[in-house]
Amino acid sequence: MTPNNRKQALVFTEADVFLNQEGMAPGMAVKQGETCWIFLPGVPREMKHLADTYVFPYLQDMFRLNHVILSRMLRFIGIGESQLEHELRHLIAAQTNPTIAPLAAEGEVALRLTAKASSDAAAKALIEDAETEVLKTTASFYYGRDEERLEEKILQMLGKTGKTIASAESLTGGMFMEQLTAIPGASSFCQGSIVSYTVEAKKQLLQVNPETIERYGTVSEQCAREMASQACKLLQADIAVSFTGVAGPDGAEGKQPGTVFIALSHQGEKSLAESFSFSGNRETVRRRAAKKGLELLWKYLKQQVDTADTFLQNKE
Amino acid sequence: MTPNNRKQALVFTEADVFLNQEGMAPGMAVKQGETCWIFLPGVPREMKHLADTYVFPYLQDMFRLNHVILSRMLRFIGIGESQLEHELRHLIAAQTNPTIAPLAAEGEVALRLTAKASSDAAAKALIEDAETEVLKTTASFYYGRDEERLEEKILQMLGKTGKTIASAESLTGGMFMEQLTAIPGASSFCQGSIVSYTVEAKKQLLQVNPETIERYGTVSEQCAREMASQACKLLQADIAVSFTGVAGPDGAEGKQPGTVFIALSHQGEKSLAESFSFSGNRETVRRRAAKKGLELLWKYLKQQVDTADTFLQNKE
Repeated sequence: MTPNNRKQALVFTEADVFLNQEGMAPGMAVKQGETCWIFLPGVPREMKHLADTYVFPYLQDMFRLNHVILSRMLRFIGIGESQLEHELRHLIAAQTNPTIAPLAAEGEVALRLTAKASSDAAAKALIEDAETEVLKTTASFYYGRDEERLEEKILQMLGKTGKTIASAESLTGGMFMEQLTAIPGASSFCQGSIVSYTVEAKKQLLQVNPETIERYGTVSEQCAREMASQACKLLQADIAVSFTGVAGPDGAEGKQPGTVFIALSHQGEKSLAESFSFSGNRETVRRRAAKKGLELLWKYLKQQVDTADTFLQNKE
Repeated sequence: MTPNNRKQALVFTEADVFLNQEGMAPGMAVKQGETCWIFLPGVPREMKHLADTYVFPYLQDMFRLNHVILSRMLRFIGIGESQLEHELRHLIAAQTNPTIAPLAAEGEVALRLTAKASSDAAAKALIEDAETEVLKTTASFYYGRDEERLEEKILQMLGKTGKTIASAESLTGGMFMEQLTAIPGASSFCQGSIVSYTVEAKKQLLQVNPETIERYGTVSEQCAREMASQACKLLQADIAVSFTGVAGPDGAEGKQPGTVFIALSHQGEKSLAESFSFSGNRETVRRRAAKKGLELLWKYLKQQVDTADTFLQNKE
């Protein structure tokens, strides 16, 4: 151990120590008269981890207040921030408690409801009433709340429908499958991905028909459709999503940067395809494409789940 | 266009407008007597883009100062922050101008040199002297400066050596190839990746010998070696890097979360393999594995480039 590694691990004798599960330097709280000093590591990820896990509960415990402030995030996909605000303009204009704040994230939107009340139960009731109002006009875009992630919801729906998933990726370079497999338990549903970055990889490994590429190019709806159905077959998945397009900064095959085709194949056959024209730099185009693929997959699975539910209700 | 989209695009009559290339709402500067008001959108990525591209140069221009502060980042891989600090402890202890600040990033370390002088040239000279001193003991870990990225350096070395790259990924889910293909120009060197997340995908698509998996499991050095050489062959790449391991939160095949094997194959044959035991949660383990793969690839290519340079010098 180097001397400065040892130094990082030292704590004050009187400190309450917060165990850092993301790195080496622990966090600490030291009380001195009326003052409470909090010491945290400087690496943002470590600092956030310790703040969320230990410091906020610690401070709430120490400075107990007479009222409760409770927040809930409602998460939406497939609707823009402006559109959501427009849909909810009357609710937002009339807001007092809870407050309603729209927040834009990467390719999706969230709504933060914040209520102040004398008890947890009272704050929760206020939030639930507002949530019911909000979802009256926006339910079809709503996918989850608080820290729930779209990828997590997708995996849950794959579980419900008993389907597995694969992808064939070109401009996204593996980002779509990387994001799905980030969720614990992904191995039950994710078969894998063929990242066919070159024309040869598309022809030889993914076995897209060379005539399709000859006639329409790799940046085409036809190529996207074949990529998706080939991924289904080669990775033995029920559903596959494919991505082909121009990330930029330069154009390709006479297409502008931001031109992207995304296809979805079910059992190697039934195939949706959509074309997009994303703005932004290379990184933004790639991220928007991967997110749009998640959105299309979520919508497709939601339809399957809803249809199955209706079917079951009709049978009852 | 919704009314609030229109509202986002409005600017003040007297404003200097900063064009937002990452989103819709523009930035603005309005001067009023001695005060300069800067208006920026709230989305962090858009705000940073406008600040870096327009606001900082705008303010530097407006409040011209008598001295110059210049910074340079030196970037290192394969050495920890503590180890780097230890190597440079005498330099760091004696620092005045430029100052020397070590900063830890994900799986790598940076050193920020900051000099203050009466002119750009004088500040640059101070920084270059310090850089020479720093690199005397740390050159073998140094890969680039300022905003240069490891992936960028890897692509440059692939260009120098005329090699192409592929990957076979399991626990990383495509992250390694996603990171390489994030760099503009990646299509000249990146063939693609086979993300073989399941045992069947490893056997059938990647064609790892079923006996290898039977005998050693998928989380093994042997499986990693075969994954790398198969990726070379199937994606017709000169070099391939493979990843297999346990991301967690649960163990698998009797191995602890964080157990990872990474192999590198050259022309499908000569194959390096290393085992790792990464700490941290699922996300951290995956990111550390992908970064370690980049590090191994960088080291391997550096050796190739250095050998070629020595060979050329000997011939002269």
